[in-house]
Amino acid sequence: MAQILVIHGPNLNLLGEREPSIYGEQSLEDVNRVLMEDGAKHDMKVHCFQSNHEGDIVDRIQAARGQYDAIIINAGALSHYSIAILDALRSFPGPIIEVHISNIFTRESYRRHSLISEAVTGGIFGLGTQGYRLALLAAVEML
Amino acid sequence: MAQILVIHGPNLNLLGEREPSIYGEQSLEDVNRVLMEDGAKHDMKVHCFQSNHEGDIVDRIQAARGQYDAIIINAGALSHYSIAILDALRSFPGPIIEVHISNIFTRESYRRHSLISEAVTGGIFGLGTQGYRLALLAAVEML
Amino acid sequence: MAQILVIHGPNLNLLGEREPSIYGEQSLEDVNRVLMEDGAKHDMKVHCFQSNHEGDIVDRIQAARGQYDAIIINAGALSHYSIAILDALRSFPGPIIEVHISNIFTRESYRRHSLISEAVTGGIFGLGTQGYRLALLAAVEML
Amino acid sequence: MAQILVIHGPNLNLLGEREPSIYGEQSLEDVNRVLMEDGAKHDMKVHCFQSNHEGDIVDRIQAARGQYDAIIINAGALSHYSIAILDALRSFPGPIIEVHISNIFTRESYRRHSLISEAVTGGIFGLGTQGYRLALLAAVEML
Amino acid sequence: MAQILVIHGPNLNLLGEREPSIYGEQSLEDVNRVLMEDGAKHDMKVHCFQSNHEGDIVDRIQAARGQYDAIIINAGALSHYSIAILDALRSFPGPIIEVHISNIFTRESYRRHSLISEAVTGGIFGLGTQGYRLALLAAVEML
Amino acid sequence: MAQILVIHGPNLNLLGEREPSIYGEQSLEDVNRVLMEDGAKHDMKVHCFQSNHEGDIVDRIQAARGQYDAIIINAGALSHYSIAILDALRSFPGPIIEVHISNIFTRESYRRHSLISEAVTGGIFGLGTQGYRLALLAAVEML
Amino acid sequence: MAQILVIHGPNLNLLGEREPSIYGEQSLEDVNRVLMEDGAKHDMKVHCFQSNHEGDIVDRIQAARGQYDAIIINAGALSHYSIAILDALRSFPGPIIEVHISNIFTRESYRRHSLISEAVTGGIFGLGTQGYRLALLAAVEML
Amino acid sequence: MAQILVIHGPNLNLLGEREPSIYGEQSLEDVNRVLMEDGAKHDMKVHCFQSNHEGDIVDRIQAARGQYDAIIINAGALSHYSIAILDALRSFPGPIIEVHISNIFTRESYRRHSLISEAVTGGIFGLGTQGYRLALLAAVEML
Amino acid sequence: MAQILVIHGPNLNLLGEREPSIYGEQSLEDVNRVLMEDGAKHDMKVHCFQSNHEGDIVDRIQAARGQYDAIIINAGALSHYSIAILDALRSFPGPIIEVHISNIFTRESYRRHSLISEAVTGGIFGLGTQGYRLALLAAVEML
Amino acid sequence: MAQILVIHGPNLNLLGEREPSIYGEQSLEDVNRVLMEDGAKHDMKVHCFQSNHEGDIVDRIQAARGQYDAIIINAGALSHYSIAILDALRSFPGPIIEVHISNIFTRESYRRHSLISEAVTGGIFGLGTQGYRLALLAAVEML
Amino acid sequence: MAQILVIHGPNLNLLGEREPSIYGEQSLEDVNRVLMEDGAKHDMKVHCFQSNHEGDIVDRIQAARGQYDAIIINAGALSHYSIAILDALRSFPGPIIEVHISNIFTRESYRRHSLISEAVTGGIFGLGTQGYRLALLAAVEML
Amino acid sequence: MAQILVIHGPNLNLLGEREPSIYGEQSLEDVNRVLMEDGAKHDMKVHCFQSNHEGDIVDRIQAARGQYDAIIINAGALSHYSIAILDALRSFPGPIIEVHISNIFTRESYRRHSLISEAVTGGIFGLGTQGYRLALLAAVEML
Repeated sequence: MAQILVIHGPNLNLLGEREPSIYGEQSLEDVNRVLMEDGAKHDMKVHCFQSNHEGDIVDRIQAARGQYDAIIINAGALSHYSIAILDALRSFPGPIIEVHISNIFTRESYRRHSLISEAVTGGIFGLGTQGYRLALLAAVEML
Repeated sequence: MAQILVIHGPNLNLLGEREPSIYGEQSLEDVNRVLMEDGAKHDMKVHCFQSNHEGDIVDRIQAARGQYDAIIINAGALSHYSIAILDALRSFPGPIIEVHISNIFTRESYRRHSLISEAVTGGIFGLGTQGYRLALLAAVEML
Repeated sequence: MAQILVIHGPNLNLLGEREPSIYGEQSLEDVNRVLMEDGAKHDMKVHCFQSNHEGDIVDRIQAARGQYDAIIINAGALSHYSIAILDALRSFPGPIIEVHISNIFTRESYRRHSLISEAVTGGIFGLGTQGYRLALLAAVEML
Repeated sequence: MAQILVIHGPNLNLLGEREPSIYGEQSLEDVNRVLMEDGAKHDMKVHCFQSNHEGDIVDRIQAARGQYDAIIINAGALSHYSIAILDALRSFPGPIIEVHISNIFTRESYRRHSLISEAVTGGIFGLGTQGYRLALLAAVEML
Repeated sequence: MAQILVIHGPNLNLLGEREPSIYGEQSLEDVNRVLMEDGAKHDMKVHCFQSNHEGDIVDRIQAARGQYDAIIINAGALSHYSIAILDALRSFPGPIIEVHISNIFTRESYRRHSLISEAVTGGIFGLGTQGYRLALLAAVEML
Repeated sequence: MAQILVIHGPNLNLLGEREPSIYGEQSLEDVNRVLMEDGAKHDMKVHCFQSNHEGDIVDRIQAARGQYDAIIINAGALSHYSIAILDALRSFPGPIIEVHISNIFTRESYRRHSLISEAVTGGIFGLGTQGYRLALLAAVEML
Repeated sequence: MAQILVIHGPNLNLLGEREPSIYGEQSLEDVNRVLMEDGAKHDMKVHCFQSNHEGDIVDRIQAARGQYDAIIINAGALSHYSIAILDALRSFPGPIIEVHISNIFTRESYRRHSLISEAVTGGIFGLGTQGYRLALLAAVEML
Repeated sequence: MAQILVIHGPNLNLLGEREPSIYGEQSLEDVNRVLMEDGAKHDMKVHCFQSNHEGDIVDRIQAARGQYDAIIINAGALSHYSIAILDALRSFPGPIIEVHISNIFTRESYRRHSLISEAVTGGIFGLGTQGYRLALLAAVEML
Repeated sequence: MAQILVIHGPNLNLLGEREPSIYGEQSLEDVNRVLMEDGAKHDMKVHCFQSNHEGDIVDRIQAARGQYDAIIINAGALSHYSIAILDALRSFPGPIIEVHISNIFTRESYRRHSLISEAVTGGIFGLGTQGYRLALLAAVEML
Repeated sequence: MAQILVIHGPNLNLLGEREPSIYGEQSLEDVNRVLMEDGAKHDMKVHCFQSNHEGDIVDRIQAARGQYDAIIINAGALSHYSIAILDALRSFPGPIIEVHISNIFTRESYRRHSLISEAVTGGIFGLGTQGYRLALLAAVEML
Repeated sequence: MAQILVIHGPNLNLLGEREPSIYGEQSLEDVNRVLMEDGAKHDMKVHCFQSNHEGDIVDRIQAARGQYDAIIINAGALSHYSIAILDALRSFPGPIIEVHISNIFTRESYRRHSLISEAVTGGIFGLGTQGYRLALLAAVEML
Repeated sequence: MAQILVIHGPNLNLLGEREPSIYGEQSLEDVNRVLMEDGAKHDMKVHCFQSNHEGDIVDRIQAARGQYDAIIINAGALSHYSIAILDALRSFPGPIIEVHISNIFTRESYRRHSLISEAVTGGIFGLGTQGYRLALLAAVEML
């Protein structure tokens, strides 16, 4: 049974509360539950992890090697400056799919460039929390 | 029955022939056939259009208003400089989903910025031709 | 009787429909009719041309040499990147007046610089569709 | 009877004397007289003001609120760096039309960007001193 | 008894009238009166000066040497380009406190950098007209 | 009784020890004690928090929603690159006042731009540790 | 018998008429006739094509695969921004030689960088219409 | 008898008082007196003018046409941003010599570029107040 | 007996596993063991520390004051953006030697500038894990 | 009999040895011999010169005035920064043809701009050592 | 008797021949003879040196320490990129005066910045060959 | 017996005399003698070479192929602009170690980027003249 790690970066624990006009009204728990259900339908086990700490995310990505088959990551604000996460992702051998809930290319200039995109297989932006579900489907297809 | 317009920009007619290490080995006909079949499963009619001419793409997007419910667009090279296409997309009232077959963020500097991203709802990059299928699912969800 | 060529670039055929808060509610037909009437009052024949195709606009400007006495051009989105139109304008010996309906200097950064301004006699921006009429008066004065 | 304020910035008092190949041979007095005559024809009173002093121009724009219906401004060199004039213009509720006698977009790099364009309704460039007359017509139309 | 000079730059005389959503509804007279009262409480004499003229502000700062113990300055638009004021401030031996009523760092790009900050002791931004009162307290503390 | 959260970022625990010519000789304990005493005088409870960990600061800001009425923050080095803290601050509904002990605008180029200024109500720089006390007064006024 | 495709981009049909001080006085027909004669001498068939339309040039380059042995291209203004042509050239397996009649490196800044140079084997600039003949010789040598 | 106008810009009236380690200990009166004496030796009349007001300097340069044979100018801080002074200088037909007391190329980045250098015949920097005397000699030679 | 602190930043715990073509095949344990042995030979005690957490590294550097005589640091990805670590290093009074295993100047643009180099005594790059040993020798020499 | 000077810049003496995948396997002697033979066929005398010293190349170009009829120059690395060679070339009255063996526009960013192109008649790049022969033909045609 | 070294950089040996509209018609020998005569009048011995070789100029500047009292240098093209000459000048303890015959600030962008200005006492530009004589006077004054 | 070539670039012959606060008080002879002694201990022959001439350094590097086993190079000022040296180093097959005596990353902006770092194996900066000795040890290890 394939194992999928879903990583949510800083402030995504506030999903549904923070700027709902941008990020939607679903909570992170809602998102995670749907992903786990979707995973079950495709015979995959989905594990969800959120942290506001760059170091914890790096630790988790490192630990994912050998333990998970694919990573889905929305690194939030850290997408834009964490070379440490970029490097950690480069050490993961399986597919990595980046998700951004909002269309980052219509936002502040410092949010228009995701540094970690260089280390991912592909990504999805601007499609709301549905982006995570599509990422899961992409992972299903690749595995 | 929802109507979906899929637009392929310059050189995508060479899919499968041009730089297969980057774009894969499927032909554009293969991609379109799968999309039409996928659409049929979700009770949607998918119309596919390819052109190497910016003006034709602008014409087609303009004509799409009132005729189609959503647009899926991979504007190819024109993504990076065609403000005319960007403007045409802004006149379309329904959802617009951008697709890039390759991960443009790992490529030449002039290919890392999609100008038309400003006018789309969201997008998918780097997931190969599967990106079109996910875009179709996203459209299904939004309509 | 002086002959004036009015060129409208991409998406200006949607005038009145596209983003009316920016471009106003008059249709392109309305604008053209008023210009032809204005021209008649000054004993000038006004010919109007719209295209979404850069190549067609270049063709038309080339053909204008020897046939028209002045050009009024709103190249729309192409103003910002079409060196081909810039070059074509340079081959036209008569006065060329550039028009922008909106104040492009209050808009997106890529819309604040009109490349073709280098090849025109002068221009008018931000005065709505009245800008075309003033351009016509300027042409009257110069011819 | 509508009141129009025409503001000429630094060095425009030398019109006709300074670099006539760029600015033409008409003196500022000529320009102002024609504008006042034109205004009279449209039942408008035109008041002309020239200064080489940024502060005086700011003072005059501030005083224009409640006293004039529209402003026509050629801020000359100050167009390119006077945020103080930009701010003053923002406090004026009526239409503001910017004029440049020469085509600033074919000149030195520091002269290609008019900072105050952000605060005006619209503008006219490169049409010589006729630009002022067209600006007056534009004001007539708007009032 | 300590002497404090408060300098208000261009357009601050319009306080309360100009863009009240940004600058608040208090008039400059209100602000000055409160500052003089506050000063009196701390046994300081507060002198207020406003000008739209860079040269007048430079003159005043030069004259302040030997006459005032501290300067509180909101140079308005001139903050962003007046090297002349920057140089004048450098000749003043006492503490200098910069005030901006609005949060300039959330505004237009040319307003995000205060050139004169290089010559001040410290500053206060975005706290409305209360910023002046806090600046006065800071001066009290330093003297 | 209003609750105020004071956040000190990385290396501020070394206050008084690190580069005293820049940051002064007061220790962080001294600063905090004075702030708590000042708060008591205005019937406010001041809570102080220092961390060298970006994630801990994000956690703390998130937890502040509903628990504190205002935040005073000196994010230290993180001011200049932590989009995660910027985002967290955006989720806080009350006033936020930024403090920098030194005049960051006279220092290294990478220290002249505070990224988090975009998310604060206002701020104080260069007034030494007194800046915190003024920030507290500003909070008193706003609450 | 080797087949050579010569492509002339926008405004090259005006050769001899447009800015002869830069581009010389030979017409495009003259140039093409000489190239066909030169080709015949080396037992090569030279086919010439001119278009002001980016899309037509892309179509023609795509069609060249399998049909021609080498391409000589002067993309004119499109050299500087057409990523679509760049991409099409990348799909052509034979040698590609770029020609510019004038020395583009002594001209306007936007004309000093040929984007399509990245996709060509080599090129010739500034040697007038003789550049085409040298390009043909280079092709002879390579085939 | 040749007439020479010497213009000193903002803050030069503080010469000898302001930052003597940079600008030396001579007062402006000393400098002017020496220049008038030097002039007398070469049968030239030297007129000295200082102002902190850009507009006054522009007025004075305009008035110099026809009245003076050469201008020696140290525009101080205004050298770096006053396009108005640059334009005024361009209207003066005689030789113009720029002087900077300090070596501006070893100072702050915004002081390393003198905008008005574009409009002068030549200049002298970093040679202290002696620079004015050398400028006078240069004028002697040119007249 | 001198005490040396060796700090390894994010992802260096994967040494030998991550991109061995760049970083070599030695594990971090190997590197540390060799350093401790080398230290012993020179009568120094070497303490090694690795963390993926910026905050932990800042904490450790702060704690090093008074406890260690020199620091050898390879901050990995954090070298390029952690101003917090830069600031912490500035508080350390002894020699600091930076190490990079690979030649960062031949790598991605964001990896070519080490921000923390500003706070170190000197450094070594591109010499593989031997760089640490040379750094230790440098520390021996300096102490 | 026309005299042609061929100048080879730094490291071109290693032709055939240095990076043969970029520069080919022919030695410089081979290249020169072929050029002299080619020259003889067109009744021209070809003189070849190689140096790793910028000063020697400048000396040689200066000496070429009056002695040679045309210059063919591949300045190698010096093409990208030697303003001294650029200036020397400007003093030569005859045609100058620049050659680059490789396609410099596909290489490192600092190698994509040839500074000396501003001073040449035209040039050839990316056509291998054949580029020299074509340059010689171009010279034949011009003389 | 004071010893003055005058250094002329690349291509200045062509003075009078190269671009006389920019550099004047005097030969370098003329310039040098006048300088030696001027020196004699002030009891100084003037030594002149010209080279097209950066290394020779560096050697000569190094040798000047202890042997000459002042240096007058026009490094020509090398002014704009030779950090080696800049460094050599920094080792010279006496006054250094830079001369440029033309006004470099009205010329090509790469000629507007003299790198070596950072290492000189002061300089003179745009005053023709008279600049050298004024530099000599400045040296007289300083010694 | 391994042969090591040590290259010192411009102005390093002044070591000990030039800016000793930056470069230390040891002479180049001292440095070289120590290196030769160190080499002898490791059974290596160290050859030292200094030149102020870029061309001589290029010549020497070219000659090093086949003759030396490793190069240690401190190209001084030339590190920052000599593409010729960079190219020469690329032709050398053995290890190359770059040395900078001072920490170039804390110095002038033009000294913070060593262009030749792209062509070296690794390097050492800021460790004084000891850097050469460490470089020699590194070479020992690699050979």
